[in-house]
Amino acid sequence: MRIARFSIDGNVGFGVLEGDSETEGGPALDIIKGHPFAEFERSGQKVPLDKVRLLPPVLPSKVVAVGRNYAEHARELGNTVPDTPVVFFKPSTSVVGPDDPVGYPAFSGELHHEAELAVVIGRMCSQVPRERARDVILGYTCANDLTARDVQRSEEQWARAKGFDGSCPLGPWIETEVDPADLAIMCTVNGAQRQLGRTSEMVRSVEELIVHITEAMTLLPGDVILTGTPAGVGPLNVGDEVAVTIEGIGTLTNKVIKRG
Amino acid sequence: MRIARFSIDGNVGFGVLEGDSETEGGPALDIIKGHPFAEFERSGQKVPLDKVRLLPPVLPSKVVAVGRNYAEHARELGNTVPDTPVVFFKPSTSVVGPDDPVGYPAFSGELHHEAELAVVIGRMCSQVPRERARDVILGYTCANDLTARDVQRSEEQWARAKGFDGSCPLGPWIETEVDPADLAIMCTVNGAQRQLGRTSEMVRSVEELIVHITEAMTLLPGDVILTGTPAGVGPLNVGDEVAVTIEGIGTLTNKVIKRG
Repeated sequence: MRIARFSIDGNVGFGVLEGDSETEGGPALDIIKGHPFAEFERSGQKVPLDKVRLLPPVLPSKVVAVGRNYAEHARELGNTVPDTPVVFFKPSTSVVGPDDPVGYPAFSGELHHEAELAVVIGRMCSQVPRERARDVILGYTCANDLTARDVQRSEEQWARAKGFDGSCPLGPWIETEVDPADLAIMCTVNGAQRQLGRTSEMVRSVEELIVHITEAMTLLPGDVILTGTPAGVGPLNVGDEVAVTIEGIGTLTNKVIKRG
Repeated sequence: MRIARFSIDGNVGFGVLEGDSETEGGPALDIIKGHPFAEFERSGQKVPLDKVRLLPPVLPSKVVAVGRNYAEHARELGNTVPDTPVVFFKPSTSVVGPDDPVGYPAFSGELHHEAELAVVIGRMCSQVPRERARDVILGYTCANDLTARDVQRSEEQWARAKGFDGSCPLGPWIETEVDPADLAIMCTVNGAQRQLGRTSEMVRSVEELIVHITEAMTLLPGDVILTGTPAGVGPLNVGDEVAVTIEGIGTLTNKVIKRG
């Protein structure tokens, strides 16, 4: 099931994606009664996908991200794979949705894309044992862990380099049924492939990351875990269109604009 | 003016502190109509301070913290003062209030106290110029930037070391009228002084930190900036009572308990 958050005529809601381009009238969202973090019903009231604006599929209280979780990416930046995962936060103010423009950060001259599998947490949890890790997951979406690479190099902690406004595009929807173990993950810039990997190359699995993070902190429904990026990161310029595609989930596209 | 957030009989509200121990009936909270981030009125309905439970004075969407902002503290941990401020996040799930117990983190054997002046943001703001920095501040409170020092040493990014549940006690209230430029700041453990400094020793002022942080990200009403800790940090053990006192603001006390 694919759950999207959307706005239409000033109203915001969640809907379940139905149909595709082959369907008469095209794909549509069946509007949810309630919200996706509890039992919910489909209303049967449908809106065509091309009539809505897709929003970030969740509004996370926090995004917990993991660095250097693909060995080849760690090497390309001259790093080794750390003994314990590198865990950092991206704040709620960094989140934007599919097709939202991203302002090139004024304090950086080296904006990089990082395509990542995002895990959407479905229930409040802490100190989750590995065998229960899948139970706390609502589903998966695409993320772009946008990074001011020059600032990341010059500042020891990454709050500004990876936490600036617009640095966390999420979307296009939450896929609740895919197995995250071995999915192709790709990033293109203006249609040209830049990153290509498989989630099976992760140093630590989704389950291991949930154990490691919740050993320290409580995750809330809608919180998001970013699971690291495969090799091939590189620069973005004003005007570029960057797209993250994950097999079985979908494509998240954003355009880089001059910051106003 | 001192604005506290409190609960009584299951209701939560904000109140303005009036009177003191010399006042007949003791200090009381005059309950606010509305919330403190806009124009508000005092209702005239008062509750005695000793009848309420004080809560964290704000529920921040994010806490933006600054490391090594007192030179003597940087030196005591063997660090130099960085060229640019060290900026990191503490998540909303780390925030607790005055007199709330703090669970000793299970993944650490070296919990440290760090007394800090906390700045409470009053309005949504980004790219704030220095001369406007004071305008975005609602007031000040006390914070304890609790740190799993061993984890901070072993993990490159500090999300777990400084973002665990309970790692950000805030309180007891927001003082809106104090000048933050030169206040005594103290930390005691079981009544014995551990940290003592003055906010005038900060490497970067409150105004400079607001400029630096909002260059990258939007701050929302209720967001909090922690401004660094003076020298004298040290260990806490289960059973310890740790108190942060800032001149002109008040005292924030928390007890360390075994994590359940």
